[in-house]
Amino acid sequence: MKYSAAIDLGGTNIGIGIVSEEGELVFKYSVPVEDNKNPEALLEQMAKGTLDTIAAAGMEVSDIAFVGIGIPGVCRSNKGPVILAPNINWHNVDAVPFLEERIGLPVLLGNDADCAAMGEYYAGAGKQYQSLIMITLGTGVGGGVVIDGKLFPGCNGFGGEFGHIPLVHGGVKCGCGKHGCFEVYGSANALKRETREMAEQHPESLIWEMCEGNLDNIGGRTAFDAADQGDETGKAIVEQYISYLADGISGIVNIFRPEVVVLGGGVSNQGASLLDPLNEKVAKLCYANETIEAPKVVKATLGNSAGIIGAGLLGF
Amino acid sequence: MKYSAAIDLGGTNIGIGIVSEEGELVFKYSVPVEDNKNPEALLEQMAKGTLDTIAAAGMEVSDIAFVGIGIPGVCRSNKGPVILAPNINWHNVDAVPFLEERIGLPVLLGNDADCAAMGEYYAGAGKQYQSLIMITLGTGVGGGVVIDGKLFPGCNGFGGEFGHIPLVHGGVKCGCGKHGCFEVYGSANALKRETREMAEQHPESLIWEMCEGNLDNIGGRTAFDAADQGDETGKAIVEQYISYLADGISGIVNIFRPEVVVLGGGVSNQGASLLDPLNEKVAKLCYANETIEAPKVVKATLGNSAGIIGAGLLGF
Repeated sequence: MKYSAAIDLGGTNIGIGIVSEEGELVFKYSVPVEDNKNPEALLEQMAKGTLDTIAAAGMEVSDIAFVGIGIPGVCRSNKGPVILAPNINWHNVDAVPFLEERIGLPVLLGNDADCAAMGEYYAGAGKQYQSLIMITLGTGVGGGVVIDGKLFPGCNGFGGEFGHIPLVHGGVKCGCGKHGCFEVYGSANALKRETREMAEQHPESLIWEMCEGNLDNIGGRTAFDAADQGDETGKAIVEQYISYLADGISGIVNIFRPEVVVLGGGVSNQGASLLDPLNEKVAKLCYANETIEAPKVVKATLGNSAGIIGAGLLGF
Repeated sequence: MKYSAAIDLGGTNIGIGIVSEEGELVFKYSVPVEDNKNPEALLEQMAKGTLDTIAAAGMEVSDIAFVGIGIPGVCRSNKGPVILAPNINWHNVDAVPFLEERIGLPVLLGNDADCAAMGEYYAGAGKQYQSLIMITLGTGVGGGVVIDGKLFPGCNGFGGEFGHIPLVHGGVKCGCGKHGCFEVYGSANALKRETREMAEQHPESLIWEMCEGNLDNIGGRTAFDAADQGDETGKAIVEQYISYLADGISGIVNIFRPEVVVLGGGVSNQGASLLDPLNEKVAKLCYANETIEAPKVVKATLGNSAGIIGAGLLGF
C-alpha cells in the first residue's frame, strides 16, 4: 500500500494527515495557523507540521509518495504558483519549490473545494459513481467536479466557481463584485441573512424566541428548526432557500450533467427536511427531465476530512 | 491531405460538405429536409445526400475518412443513439449503424452547437487560442466548449446547456420548464420580446416607425437600429439586453475560464455596438477580475459554416 501526506490549509487551522492510495485517512493532526498574514512563516509551519506528522504516524519520509495540499484559493497549476488565497494573504506565492526542498518529497497543489470533491468521489458519497459535482454551502458556495476520476479544473485552473453563476439578475451584491450570484442566495451566510430579514418583518415568528430576542444568535439551522415546529415564517424562509438552491444546482447540472450531486457544508446536515424537497425540485428543473433522469442530490459523508483525503489523492 | 464528409442537420435544411483535416470547407451543398416528421425518411435523405455530395465534389467514397454529423439535439455518445432531437422528431434514433451501412464509411455524431464551437476553434475566431467557449444567440442560447482541442461534452454528453443556467430567479418561463433561464433573457427571441414589450410601453419610440406600426415586424436588430438613431427606448432595451448577456456570460466564464468567448448567431452581427459595452461589463463581472484578466468576447467568423466545419473535424 502507498501513502501520501496531505494538508488541508485554512485561514485558522492546518489539517495534516496520512492518506492511503485507497483514500483511507490513517493518521490525522491539526494545528492552529500561527500567522496567517505572513506567507513565509506559514510555509515554514506547513513544512515542519508535515515532517512532524510523518514522524508521529511512525513513518519515514521515504514511506511517503508525495505531499498533496488543498489551497483555499486559485493555483496556476498543481505545481503552483498560488495566484490568490485571500484568507492566508497569499498573492503569487511559489509554494512548491520551497516545500519540496524543506520536506524532500514531491508536492502537488489543488483547490480546497476540488480536493473535497476528490475525497467524496473516491472515499465518500460519490464512491459508486463515475462523475460527481460537489457543492459546499458555507460562508460562500464552493464546488468541484470529478469526471471519470479526474478533476475538472476549468480551462486553465481558474474555473469551477459555481458560487459565481448568476441567480438573481441585479440582486444582492456579492463579494466578487457581481450582483445576485448563486453564493449570495445559496450559502449558509445567505440563509442566515434571509432568516434575520424575515424575522424583522415577522415579530410573531418563533424565530425571536429561538434566538432569545437577539438576531445575532441566528444560525444556519434556525429557520429549519422553526419550520420543524410549524412556524410559518420559518417554513417560508426554508421554502425560498430551497427554491434558490434548486435553481442554482439544476443550472450547474445542465452544464456538467454529473451522475450525482454531493452537498457539503453545515447546511447539508439538515438531512431529509432539506434534501427531500430539494430533490423534488431539482428533478423537475433539470434540462430534458422527461427524457434524461436528473441526478440525485445527496449529503457528503466525509465531513471535514473530505478535503484532506482528496488532497492526499492528488498524486495517485 | 485527408478529407471528411460533414452534415449539419437542421429542421428545415441539411447542409453537407467536404472538409479537409485543416478545417477548410472545400465543397458545400444544401438541400431542404423533405420530411422532418419521419426519422427513417430523413436518414435515407442524409445517406443519399452524402453520397451525392462526394460524387459532386469529384471524389470517391474511398477518398473520405469518415462522415461527421452535427445533430440538433442530444446524443448518448459520438456513436449514438440520438436520445432527443425535437426539431426533427428523433427520439432514441440509432442513426450510426444505418448510415454506416448505407454510406460505407465510419460515422461520428456531435451536438450541433458543439460542432460550431469546434469549427470556430480550429478554423475561425478561436484559431489562436487553446480554449474557447462559443455561445450562440438565436432562437435559444446554445453553446459549446473546446479545451486543448477537445470538446467538453459534460460528464456524459448531456451537459453544456448554457442557455439553461439561471439568470432571473422566478423570471419568465423557459421552454425547458424552468423559470428565468439565461435563454429567455439572452436569446435573439428574448431581445425581440423585450423590444415588443418596451415599444408597447413607449408609443413615442422610433421603434413604431421602424416596424411600420406592426410589432410583428420587430426583429433582433430593431432595438439596436433605434438606439443608433438616438431613440431612448431603443437605448434602454439594448442596455438591459447587454446587461443580461454580461451576467450570463461572466457566470459561464467563472465556471470554464476559457481564453476567449466566441459569440455566434444573428445578434453577434451588431458588432461594436454590442461587443464594446459587453466586453466592458464582462471584464468587470468575471471572478477575481483584479487578479486574472477576463477573456475577450469576440464575434464568430465562420457564420453558418461553423457547424459543418466542426462536424467535419469530429474524427481528425
